[in-house]
Amino acid sequence: MKLATYQDGSRDGQLLVVSRDLRLAHYTSQIANRLQQVLDDWNYLSPQLQDLSDALNAGKARHAFPFDSRQCMAPLPRAYQWVQGNGYASLSAVQEPSRQPQLAQGSGANLWGATAPIVCANAAWGVDFGAGLAVVTGDIPMDCASDRALDGVRLLMLCNAVQLQAGALGTLQLGAAFSPVAVTPDELGEAWSRGRVQGQLHVTWNGRKVGMCDAGADMHFHFGRLLSALAQARAVPAGTIVGSGTVGNKAIERKGRAEWPQGYSSIAAKRAMETVQDGQPSTDFLQAGDTVRIELKDPDGASIFGAIEQEVVGNGARAVSPASTAAQTP
Amino acid sequence: MKLATYQDGSRDGQLLVVSRDLRLAHYTSQIANRLQQVLDDWNYLSPQLQDLSDALNAGKARHAFPFDSRQCMAPLPRAYQWVQGNGYASLSAVQEPSRQPQLAQGSGANLWGATAPIVCANAAWGVDFGAGLAVVTGDIPMDCASDRALDGVRLLMLCNAVQLQAGALGTLQLGAAFSPVAVTPDELGEAWSRGRVQGQLHVTWNGRKVGMCDAGADMHFHFGRLLSALAQARAVPAGTIVGSGTVGNKAIERKGRAEWPQGYSSIAAKRAMETVQDGQPSTDFLQAGDTVRIELKDPDGASIFGAIEQEVVGNGARAVSPASTAAQTP
Repeated sequence: MKLATYQDGSRDGQLLVVSRDLRLAHYTSQIANRLQQVLDDWNYLSPQLQDLSDALNAGKARHAFPFDSRQCMAPLPRAYQWVQGNGYASLSAVQEPSRQPQLAQGSGANLWGATAPIVCANAAWGVDFGAGLAVVTGDIPMDCASDRALDGVRLLMLCNAVQLQAGALGTLQLGAAFSPVAVTPDELGEAWSRGRVQGQLHVTWNGRKVGMCDAGADMHFHFGRLLSALAQARAVPAGTIVGSGTVGNKAIERKGRAEWPQGYSSIAAKRAMETVQDGQPSTDFLQAGDTVRIELKDPDGASIFGAIEQEVVGNGARAVSPASTAAQTP
Repeated sequence: MKLATYQDGSRDGQLLVVSRDLRLAHYTSQIANRLQQVLDDWNYLSPQLQDLSDALNAGKARHAFPFDSRQCMAPLPRAYQWVQGNGYASLSAVQEPSRQPQLAQGSGANLWGATAPIVCANAAWGVDFGAGLAVVTGDIPMDCASDRALDGVRLLMLCNAVQLQAGALGTLQLGAAFSPVAVTPDELGEAWSRGRVQGQLHVTWNGRKVGMCDAGADMHFHFGRLLSALAQARAVPAGTIVGSGTVGNKAIERKGRAEWPQGYSSIAAKRAMETVQDGQPSTDFLQAGDTVRIELKDPDGASIFGAIEQEVVGNGARAVSPASTAAQTP
């Protein structure tokens, strides 16, 4: 099933199920209002949501309404734990990959919807996007092996982990945006395999396609490894979000020069590639007014998670509210 | 007022108000069940809790019952953001203090009650206590000056930030325990001043008093500075917990030798002192069976927050459940 959370003026929003083709939605008020509630009591509540999802996909949900991704908060708008991993070794042709998963705790209080503006307090700070995947977990016990840890994956999402790359603060995770919908692993079919998502992650910067990386091929530490590492010293409670890190593919060598024909999923990665190729980076970080779009498509070209579409705005500037279409209550 | 959260089998527990002398408690079910609810809607709900607190302290609360700190979860058992600061410069006689507040994001999903066992998965890892204070915030806007940020302090607690000091993981925040009660700043009277808590933090290790540090004197970055730094790039949402860092006092020099007569609040600090004095550390980290007690007393010797009292246990070992005394429902 696919789940989303609509803005309703509250901090946690209103949970809904979304049809597989992302056209229709249905409120889940009769089952649960908030996604954290569902994660806290997954075995009891998720079958009820699945029934509603089945009815929606069969065209039999009575109060269905058109789904509008611009009304979405993050599927889980506030999380008790948000951790970014280092799943990919995209520069490994030239750099030794990390031998251990490394996990960076972030703030679960700064999770954004798919079309939230990226507000930057200081234009001098380099702002970077970071396109990847993320999982939402159930309860995973302490000291859990990676294959068993994978059983704790409840939902998958796309993720844009926004970092500040300069300034007195050093590198700081500013926040993260998530795809309009979170999906259960079964929605991915064979594309979810051995802790990895097989598929091309399309990254578009100011209308130009800059990344079409394969999300599965070069995921050095798959989600089971990342979750097992997180559980090494303590249990991982339900509602934890773990990011894959920026998706990337290994370099290929062409005429003695390292190349990355599938592009990049963050400016930091692009700059690292330029440094390898030319001795110095030449691509600047994001500017106010820049847009970033992130989407993963299935082999038939259908969007699985919906798209993350964000614009960078300065402090004080406010993004224009999207034209409200059809957030009808059931 | 003083607030606590009792275990009730749920993940968020049951909120209660506690009398100033920590003898009596009263459930707040008629107002709110969870502390996060109160923080989300502080202006509406906190006056109602204050009325109940006033009645309890006046002996007029009809369903009061004896307060038992062993029934407590952390006052806020799950937080959307938990950040440890570096408020103190206890080794500054020998080390240059940091010029900027430094904030380490932790997991808000691993917050423990005051008497929770410290479970260590691997006995070979050095486990350390870290006694300090912590604040729970309301909403603090982005780019907020330190004096205004202090207005966002809703509650204060004691904190034991437990770190693993060795092993392949490097230094890892294992989790943090909090005092039985969280108190509004007015409960501290003049002891809450300019973002600092004036008072002696008593730290007892295996029954031996090892720390009696003054929590106010050498707090280099007070809570307003720490909160302002956290808000530098993004808003700080209600329910964020910010720790002071390990409390410590500056060294004094006696016969050409640095000394810390008020002791220490973490083993790492003690080992750093030993390194200054003798060239190498001699105190080992915690062992299974060790106990740690942390308490702050007012000038009359009364406990303000109740005590954190924890025992270290190995993985698999379970702490003996405290004899249940008096968790009567109203």
